[in-house]
Amino acid sequence: MTKARTELIHGGDLDSARLRHPGAQDHWIDLSTGINPWPYPLPDIPAEDWHRLPGRQALEALKEEARHFYGAGQQTGLVAAPGTQLLIQLLPRLFAPTRVEVAGFTYGEHERCWQLTGHEVAITEPDRDPDPTTRIRVVTRPNNPDGLILPRDRLMSWANSLAARDGLLVVDEAFAEVAPDCSLAPEAGHPGLCILRSFGKFFGLAGMRLGFALGSPELQRRIETALGPWAVPGPTLTIGTAALSDQDWSMRTRQALATQASQLDAVLHQAGLEYLGGTDLFRLYAHAKAGEISEKLAERGLLVRSFPEEPRWLRFGLPPDAEAMDRLKQALAHV
Amino acid sequence: MTKARTELIHGGDLDSARLRHPGAQDHWIDLSTGINPWPYPLPDIPAEDWHRLPGRQALEALKEEARHFYGAGQQTGLVAAPGTQLLIQLLPRLFAPTRVEVAGFTYGEHERCWQLTGHEVAITEPDRDPDPTTRIRVVTRPNNPDGLILPRDRLMSWANSLAARDGLLVVDEAFAEVAPDCSLAPEAGHPGLCILRSFGKFFGLAGMRLGFALGSPELQRRIETALGPWAVPGPTLTIGTAALSDQDWSMRTRQALATQASQLDAVLHQAGLEYLGGTDLFRLYAHAKAGEISEKLAERGLLVRSFPEEPRWLRFGLPPDAEAMDRLKQALAHV
Repeated sequence: MTKARTELIHGGDLDSARLRHPGAQDHWIDLSTGINPWPYPLPDIPAEDWHRLPGRQALEALKEEARHFYGAGQQTGLVAAPGTQLLIQLLPRLFAPTRVEVAGFTYGEHERCWQLTGHEVAITEPDRDPDPTTRIRVVTRPNNPDGLILPRDRLMSWANSLAARDGLLVVDEAFAEVAPDCSLAPEAGHPGLCILRSFGKFFGLAGMRLGFALGSPELQRRIETALGPWAVPGPTLTIGTAALSDQDWSMRTRQALATQASQLDAVLHQAGLEYLGGTDLFRLYAHAKAGEISEKLAERGLLVRSFPEEPRWLRFGLPPDAEAMDRLKQALAHV
Repeated sequence: MTKARTELIHGGDLDSARLRHPGAQDHWIDLSTGINPWPYPLPDIPAEDWHRLPGRQALEALKEEARHFYGAGQQTGLVAAPGTQLLIQLLPRLFAPTRVEVAGFTYGEHERCWQLTGHEVAITEPDRDPDPTTRIRVVTRPNNPDGLILPRDRLMSWANSLAARDGLLVVDEAFAEVAPDCSLAPEAGHPGLCILRSFGKFFGLAGMRLGFALGSPELQRRIETALGPWAVPGPTLTIGTAALSDQDWSMRTRQALATQASQLDAVLHQAGLEYLGGTDLFRLYAHAKAGEISEKLAERGLLVRSFPEEPRWLRFGLPPDAEAMDRLKQALAHV
């Protein structure tokens, strides 16, 4: 068990990058996140959405679209929240201090949030069965940053054993939109399961803050009671409902992301980096001189994600266009 | 101590009003909240605000404007949150179960949120000194719905005595924009004080969800750690910063609200209702046939706030224009 940290390093921090590299080009290309570079086109937002308190019917409409999009049954509990991060912060507060396992090297906020609320947190091998004393297990699937997708049967068996001790398997599916067949959301009514889904990454609207939790109706009730009324802003309800119902856009976007990710692979492979894994929203590569590469890229206004814990790793988001892909290629030629 | 409720009645629920009164005019006028009917004009929102994770510098810029707007010193801790309601939900989770007093008949969410997190909550006379065993006291000031403003010295003395037992005086200043001289925000660095400020009511942007807490730097740290990163959406940072820095708009709006509130008074007085109190964002009136009046108004598409606990009371928000004021006048002539 490590000491609770109050703040972690995250991708997307262009402000700090600009301060560290004042000489870099003004137009930074941010490849440090897993956010789709081609956002869902914003629908018209009625003035009333900003003005009035968010209405119940608009919230129910969003939840209905989310239920459909995630393939969740009518009996499954579903909560909309202003960002998945807030759900990650809140969930640990709904349980008395207990033993929690977080699977593998993953999104750091899970460990931090369970720790800071007094739980005993252990980081475990991703595929190890939960310890008999463990009540909560957290799995990110596909995992960030390495893209690992643990077998479905394995997870369902963990959910069963955790449910038997009144525990919970939390599955963070922040990147499951680009691997929809792997999602456990259709199983989220199963006892002992809680699925977290992020809206902003796949839809390219991370600044809007929207996320969902799926699980038992009892879990839904507890989370909604803790969030209180009007948790999701009116404009967010309108945009989220439009985006989740636009199946055509989602299908085209999945294809476009897959194409762009494979072109990114070609560039990184060419530069001598070693592929470790990823999803169609980010790729994880290794190189002995990763730190040096990251610095050279930053000097040319390209921000990628480094991992102090794994100095050989670099995570790359998708370049938004051919010009950005070319700039990355040129910059890598100098290392 | 009453039983914890999971959901309260609130103003602004037009969805329910439409269901209850299907025969009412289509164009409802919602007078059931204390939201300024003339919203701050939205500035242009850069596409990046929606797309990228909210940046640190944009958050700091918002907090700086808020600090200035609320008159808080540089040593005072200040937190921005996606709506004051979420702060009201979160605050009780930062304290071990204790005895809490909520002053008077007031905004119901304070009682509900402290109760549901295991605290022992008592509703007390507004001006009574805290019981020696009380650690947390909550005061809404000006109070909703009656507009009561407890004397400043009284509150500072309560803050002192609560601070001495490591407690807190929580002052909900949701409507203080229309009574800025009464705000305790400039004193918020004082030990034992926590001031809550709402953005959406005065700026007419309740659907956006933005609120602030001011208090000690230690309290700020605890709340921010519990909220986690990116709690306030990117577009909200941009809009909030623009609105809080527009002193001219605030000044003109205060005057306009005061004028409209006094015209509302004239209409309600004329109709034989008895003035009880309020602020320039809402007025509280009494009438022996309040329930009947509320029904008649609803049949004509005018929604006002009733109080099951106080059947003689009606709370009126400001009609947005002369047409709405006239419709209210006509509707009241029929009762």
